[in-house]
Amino acid sequence: MEQQTHPKHYCGVFGVYGHPNAAELTYYGLYALQHRGQESAGIVSCDGKQFHEHKGMGLVPQVFKGKVLHELIGEMAIGHARYSTTGSSHIGNAQPLTVDCSRGRIAIAHNGNLTNASQLREELEEKGSIFQTTVDSEIVLHWLAQPTHNGENTLVTTIRKLEGAFSLLIMTQSEMIGVRDPYGFRPLCIGQLANGSYVLSSETCALDLIEAKFVRDVEPGEIVIIDEKGLRSIQAFPEHKKRSFCIFEYVYFARPDSTLADQNVYKVRVNMGKELARENPLDADIVVPIPDSGNCAALGYSLESGIPFEMAFVRNHYVGRSFLQPSQLIRDFNVRVKLNLITDLVKGKRVIIVDDSIVRGTTCKKRVNSLKEAGAKEVHVLVSCPPHKNPCVYGIDFPDRNKLMAANYNLDEICQYLDADSLNYLSQDGMVRATGKPKDSFCMACYDGVYPVEYDPGVDKHIMERRRERFEKLVGDDSQPKLL
Amino acid sequence: MEQQTHPKHYCGVFGVYGHPNAAELTYYGLYALQHRGQESAGIVSCDGKQFHEHKGMGLVPQVFKGKVLHELIGEMAIGHARYSTTGSSHIGNAQPLTVDCSRGRIAIAHNGNLTNASQLREELEEKGSIFQTTVDSEIVLHWLAQPTHNGENTLVTTIRKLEGAFSLLIMTQSEMIGVRDPYGFRPLCIGQLANGSYVLSSETCALDLIEAKFVRDVEPGEIVIIDEKGLRSIQAFPEHKKRSFCIFEYVYFARPDSTLADQNVYKVRVNMGKELARENPLDADIVVPIPDSGNCAALGYSLESGIPFEMAFVRNHYVGRSFLQPSQLIRDFNVRVKLNLITDLVKGKRVIIVDDSIVRGTTCKKRVNSLKEAGAKEVHVLVSCPPHKNPCVYGIDFPDRNKLMAANYNLDEICQYLDADSLNYLSQDGMVRATGKPKDSFCMACYDGVYPVEYDPGVDKHIMERRRERFEKLVGDDSQPKLL
Amino acid sequence: MEQQTHPKHYCGVFGVYGHPNAAELTYYGLYALQHRGQESAGIVSCDGKQFHEHKGMGLVPQVFKGKVLHELIGEMAIGHARYSTTGSSHIGNAQPLTVDCSRGRIAIAHNGNLTNASQLREELEEKGSIFQTTVDSEIVLHWLAQPTHNGENTLVTTIRKLEGAFSLLIMTQSEMIGVRDPYGFRPLCIGQLANGSYVLSSETCALDLIEAKFVRDVEPGEIVIIDEKGLRSIQAFPEHKKRSFCIFEYVYFARPDSTLADQNVYKVRVNMGKELARENPLDADIVVPIPDSGNCAALGYSLESGIPFEMAFVRNHYVGRSFLQPSQLIRDFNVRVKLNLITDLVKGKRVIIVDDSIVRGTTCKKRVNSLKEAGAKEVHVLVSCPPHKNPCVYGIDFPDRNKLMAANYNLDEICQYLDADSLNYLSQDGMVRATGKPKDSFCMACYDGVYPVEYDPGVDKHIMERRRERFEKLVGDDSQPKLL
Amino acid sequence: MEQQTHPKHYCGVFGVYGHPNAAELTYYGLYALQHRGQESAGIVSCDGKQFHEHKGMGLVPQVFKGKVLHELIGEMAIGHARYSTTGSSHIGNAQPLTVDCSRGRIAIAHNGNLTNASQLREELEEKGSIFQTTVDSEIVLHWLAQPTHNGENTLVTTIRKLEGAFSLLIMTQSEMIGVRDPYGFRPLCIGQLANGSYVLSSETCALDLIEAKFVRDVEPGEIVIIDEKGLRSIQAFPEHKKRSFCIFEYVYFARPDSTLADQNVYKVRVNMGKELARENPLDADIVVPIPDSGNCAALGYSLESGIPFEMAFVRNHYVGRSFLQPSQLIRDFNVRVKLNLITDLVKGKRVIIVDDSIVRGTTCKKRVNSLKEAGAKEVHVLVSCPPHKNPCVYGIDFPDRNKLMAANYNLDEICQYLDADSLNYLSQDGMVRATGKPKDSFCMACYDGVYPVEYDPGVDKHIMERRRERFEKLVGDDSQPKLL
Repeated sequence: MEQQTHPKHYCGVFGVYGHPNAAELTYYGLYALQHRGQESAGIVSCDGKQFHEHKGMGLVPQVFKGKVLHELIGEMAIGHARYSTTGSSHIGNAQPLTVDCSRGRIAIAHNGNLTNASQLREELEEKGSIFQTTVDSEIVLHWLAQPTHNGENTLVTTIRKLEGAFSLLIMTQSEMIGVRDPYGFRPLCIGQLANGSYVLSSETCALDLIEAKFVRDVEPGEIVIIDEKGLRSIQAFPEHKKRSFCIFEYVYFARPDSTLADQNVYKVRVNMGKELARENPLDADIVVPIPDSGNCAALGYSLESGIPFEMAFVRNHYVGRSFLQPSQLIRDFNVRVKLNLITDLVKGKRVIIVDDSIVRGTTCKKRVNSLKEAGAKEVHVLVSCPPHKNPCVYGIDFPDRNKLMAANYNLDEICQYLDADSLNYLSQDGMVRATGKPKDSFCMACYDGVYPVEYDPGVDKHIMERRRERFEKLVGDDSQPKLL
Repeated sequence: MEQQTHPKHYCGVFGVYGHPNAAELTYYGLYALQHRGQESAGIVSCDGKQFHEHKGMGLVPQVFKGKVLHELIGEMAIGHARYSTTGSSHIGNAQPLTVDCSRGRIAIAHNGNLTNASQLREELEEKGSIFQTTVDSEIVLHWLAQPTHNGENTLVTTIRKLEGAFSLLIMTQSEMIGVRDPYGFRPLCIGQLANGSYVLSSETCALDLIEAKFVRDVEPGEIVIIDEKGLRSIQAFPEHKKRSFCIFEYVYFARPDSTLADQNVYKVRVNMGKELARENPLDADIVVPIPDSGNCAALGYSLESGIPFEMAFVRNHYVGRSFLQPSQLIRDFNVRVKLNLITDLVKGKRVIIVDDSIVRGTTCKKRVNSLKEAGAKEVHVLVSCPPHKNPCVYGIDFPDRNKLMAANYNLDEICQYLDADSLNYLSQDGMVRATGKPKDSFCMACYDGVYPVEYDPGVDKHIMERRRERFEKLVGDDSQPKLL
Repeated sequence: MEQQTHPKHYCGVFGVYGHPNAAELTYYGLYALQHRGQESAGIVSCDGKQFHEHKGMGLVPQVFKGKVLHELIGEMAIGHARYSTTGSSHIGNAQPLTVDCSRGRIAIAHNGNLTNASQLREELEEKGSIFQTTVDSEIVLHWLAQPTHNGENTLVTTIRKLEGAFSLLIMTQSEMIGVRDPYGFRPLCIGQLANGSYVLSSETCALDLIEAKFVRDVEPGEIVIIDEKGLRSIQAFPEHKKRSFCIFEYVYFARPDSTLADQNVYKVRVNMGKELARENPLDADIVVPIPDSGNCAALGYSLESGIPFEMAFVRNHYVGRSFLQPSQLIRDFNVRVKLNLITDLVKGKRVIIVDDSIVRGTTCKKRVNSLKEAGAKEVHVLVSCPPHKNPCVYGIDFPDRNKLMAANYNLDEICQYLDADSLNYLSQDGMVRATGKPKDSFCMACYDGVYPVEYDPGVDKHIMERRRERFEKLVGDDSQPKLL
Repeated sequence: MEQQTHPKHYCGVFGVYGHPNAAELTYYGLYALQHRGQESAGIVSCDGKQFHEHKGMGLVPQVFKGKVLHELIGEMAIGHARYSTTGSSHIGNAQPLTVDCSRGRIAIAHNGNLTNASQLREELEEKGSIFQTTVDSEIVLHWLAQPTHNGENTLVTTIRKLEGAFSLLIMTQSEMIGVRDPYGFRPLCIGQLANGSYVLSSETCALDLIEAKFVRDVEPGEIVIIDEKGLRSIQAFPEHKKRSFCIFEYVYFARPDSTLADQNVYKVRVNMGKELARENPLDADIVVPIPDSGNCAALGYSLESGIPFEMAFVRNHYVGRSFLQPSQLIRDFNVRVKLNLITDLVKGKRVIIVDDSIVRGTTCKKRVNSLKEAGAKEVHVLVSCPPHKNPCVYGIDFPDRNKLMAANYNLDEICQYLDADSLNYLSQDGMVRATGKPKDSFCMACYDGVYPVEYDPGVDKHIMERRRERFEKLVGDDSQPKLL
């Protein structure tokens, strides 16, 4: 078990209050949010007295097999689907996290990343707290369990301690609570079933699947409490923060059939393709998407430019269904097994390929190469967002800066590496225009390096060192047994 | 175990001769042919002396897990991926089938359906043959094992007995043989690896994955023998039969990146969409495919008509990866979980939806309904092939005639059932035009009812009765122990 | 898949006729016979029309998990538990074997070994038969399916062709048949349930578990037919053969709670220990069994000699429940993990250890060694049967003669190898006396080399050569495609 | 997930310090201790910097399959095998438990039961502690993590807070620590490998398997610290407590090849049989053990009385290897499938059966019944310990008093219920004599009701009520969101 203080990850959360099949509906909700986390999944239900919990590694239907779901009884449930970096990929870090404390039983599911996790954890450890996981939810739970003084409101006090990105679901024996950080980095919305039951979800696509009506987004800094008296809301933060919704949710992360902040994702992506066509008119015969990530933008490009749209790369629909023996025999097997190129469509043509991002460039290079081998006369690469130059500290697991191609090479160098005839990215302004929203409603730190909430990796490093030192002092005392 | 004499099924076959990793390449080949059969898979290799075999239920990578592949040593291998109706869905019917006989060890993999299977089996049983499976391959093997007289060639004699559709791969200790029925119902092609090794495959997309070059199709009635002296060929049938390639392979069955009889499937499907547009010009705002089956034809319709193409139905990429708990709570769950509709794209629009076929109509009806619920002003349904009115007896498992919608209702009735504003099918001529080939090169029995090879279900019924009678006589003799 | 003509194996068979839960009772029967075969298991039931079958690799409860048993409907069922040598250890060789033929559907389960299997198979192959397995049952089925002439009784004709050891269960659509070879090598008995249903079983312990009453043994050469009119019997062989029951069933193979040929196995084994004491009086402090194989004989020795019985070797009850990581770190781990020695009981003592056989001697040597290390003053080894000097050709998988210790070394050499203070075997006469039966009722070929039915390994070798030759001729014809 | 404050359970613990294969040796150690807990298992290793952990539900080899063990690198490891009542049977309660705290990373494995767990937990919750499990180890960890004042020694302070039974293994980044409660309820011993590495184990049988030499028992109240400087020891408690070793470890719980407090368990059990013979001379023909629990005592009875020992109940060696379909068809199936009775041995005989305990009596009644059905003339039941009249609060999961037969019925009533001809238990004095130790060295609370450490179930009930009340108050405040 590798020790990590606060691994970056992205996740999906979903909860239902007041339905006899709360856990089953949560299961379908997580299934619709599967794209936000494929590593582990968990659901905790409450029947008013007891909590019932099941968590496991794998996809949602792999985790909830057989009769497991029938045991999660009760009219309330919250669930979580998780992705994380390898180090902390084990069942102990699966969420929701449930604990007993002086305030009763509490379960939490978290999407986002706390930028002051190390500090909060250090402070707690000094008070005598123990940590069994490396997830931020455990930090939140510890603070919720602390004794309060002078009639403070525990939840508000706790939320105000947290910095960074967080969309939280909290369940107690009698209520389901949704919380969104004051910047609104990660999405969280409210839905309602035909019977009046409330639903909280990371994205609207999960509401569609269970036939819940979209009510509204949870506002930045808002705490929404759902209990037997209905839905109430309070603003946890006195002053307003700059709205900082993650623009990468539109570019790549959310499902095209979700609507985020009143904009449908599919339409935004088609708009990005149109902007791309306006910014980069090219003389070419066909526009080919990299399926499925480039589909919308390529279509937008085609609609705007009039150049025909051709799905020349064909996906193997069985990739990912079960583990395929990787081949040493076949060149670029892993790339080629996913998509096969229809040679007939590209031979002798000037081809534009469109994708939503280039992270390391290796796969894109192979696509360009296979087009050239198939006889394409020219290959032009278009990317439907600006170059990624900075890591994300608010919950998306980008590679380190030194592995981000655009942080280390200029346009010409990348184009040469890809062996393409031209390479162009969408501009930051074009991307924002495609969303139909003002630029200052977004966090675009991965593109422009402007971080709405400060995060100093040096602080974390310093804390780790202090920690090691403290242990070493303990160990260093030779006269006595070490733990004594 | 349900007893069935000759269940209809479709399948994929793949074989490699003369490569040290023959079984591994066959594994990748079957993976690329997975769409032709997801029920069971098998590979038999030969190291010149011993045969090595592994078969199992499930998808190709599920069957060949762990080190199984490493045990299939030898430079020759043939493989099979199979789909069948429930009744005969068990491991005993998985192929290739391998036997010992007086001619040594022989393995067979079969794609197609013999129309005289019952007769051939009855004849063999009367000679004293025993049957352990219900697959046609076993019948072929029995005939191959029969003693021959007067210098007859066993293989030719056997092949000439077979009627119906068959693309066969046969492996002995020293050769790999490909056979295609004289009508050429099912595809079979020859490829070659960089090192000169020959490959036989149902479709060309499997050649692409392992980087084999396409050489040519096996001709109808041709026997291709590959051994250490190379590739030889003979024509097994003296007289020429009417070429009868299954046009449904273009419409639906083959992968879009395959080329069948020199025509790329993707292009043929786009052409079908264009023909559809020419035959059915409609006044509408958007053309929406049913993904992924309607993608090509919808694109063709859009290109020809100029009406914008919009992928308003979004696939859940995780459907099918593992078994999802079906919901009783949610209306039309099974249909809706696969595709979600983006309401924003269709609200207030006149929508054309395109699919490649309507078999029972129930799913299509639900798609029309969800479009209407989302606010579409009009919904026009277009199908990129003619109505299916007849069952297939050459290896494709269509429902019985009484479950084929178009065999029982006229266009208006179906349109009314679907609750669509209009419904149109591509004409038979339009479909043929889209292939760029003459009409008489195809079997179109499922559309036009013209069966190139006779099949009389009455004969089978009669054989079953004769059989039952014979057993009952045996049982009826009271004076003696029954088997005695 | 390794090709073998007739692998040696031992097995258990069990069948029920006329009970609504025939398959479930067969399952319990096989469970009680699990010691006779742990490699694969299978059950075939018949509901009067259809056969229902399930087979798999592994222990009986592993093969019949979940709802599998509920699908094996019908009032008749036969089952088989199998052990075999590695080469033919695959699902294709699991029994019962079921086929369709001109006589209807027939299933067979076989315990024993045919000594003329190769000849029978060669004869069938020459007639055009194909073989999908390497088990003897397939040979029997082929003969049963052959057309008969002149009013011959197929079953009797077939049985008379078979040579060697066979206890067979056969099921048709209307009857269950038990057959035992004319020498009576392997056991087979008849039982009856409270409701009158008949049961056939390899051993009586399986009757006890399902509360069936023991009726009688099937006689050597007898065919027992059970159908809706009850139980009938015929003698298949006109002349009487020398009774040759396998004495090793008493020594080692059967369960102690079974009664074979009217003698309880436990009692016979205790008697063997008493005979051992009479033949080998020793001056010692304690008698220690090698558990559990030596328990009865050690107890018999103690009762006869008055020397106290001490269970100084303690079994780990969890060994075998699931696969334990073998240790390279720990000397003789595999031997030691099964039994731990209680040092306190043997320190300073003169110890007799008793086991039922010594095959290769390596394990016994380690037991002697651990006793010496624990401080035993003397270690005397007693074996409750005579030395094994010859292979078995009637269905028990002894190692080859060159691996049988007693075939290659004399008593002194073995004793020296074991590092024991003395070594003694029970005499052949002593062993026979312990059974309470005359010597000429047994096959004792593994001890005395007298084989009741001839078996010439040279014949098999010759057949294999003829076969290879035949194939090579076929392959050798260069002018034509090889199979043609 | 059912909420329980401190479920009763028994367990085995094992640890290795200073060996390159520490985790692998711990695995074998746990395997040898499998009888102490079959529900879950876990190992945590430390490579000096990082901890590596794997835990799972099931038997030790099921939990540590494949390459799992290879990932548990480091020269230190502690492990735990656990049994518990159903309620808390889930992976979250598997041990060892590992946490991060201000003192670094700490792992704990616990055998026993804290009698003041509820109080300690309430006290911690009031300080703001959160609880993720219901195991006592988590309580210990919380106390270890608390800030200390005035130079207190954290470990000693913590240990002194604990009441009840505990044998603990604790691992930090640089040391392995063993702790035993001051009464010495549960065993814990020290061993040493050939290379000098220290081992801590619940029982000596685990030392034997890995060829470690027994050094000595950990003393009651002792803390043993093993680090790079070797083994040191301190006494954590100033005053001496009454030694209270659990006598039931000798009677039933420990393996016969273990030595506890210098007495071999097998010998003690044979002595119990001898004492039983002295206290209860009976006129009978044979002594039959209930295998394997009654083996030693029956042997002792036979040795002392001269009445022959017969193993008339035969165990099915495959029971427990995999899940057997339970039968509704067969009377008393679950009892009968484990043991089959050899009728021949008992017919017409006066039979004594010996077992180590009768808890509910139902199984024993069935054994008596099957003996009578088999024709036994008389059946006398002897139990090799006194009647169980009281529950255990120190870590053994006896049924509640109202399900303990001997707590509710007198000897005659039980005998009548069993339908036996006589019934006798070993006396308390006889049991103690058999151990060769003074009576005051034992806890015999389950027999004599004298509890060395007080435990008041009323206190726990009161705490539970206080807790519920506190939550309800929180919930009752209507004016505000509940957690706020």
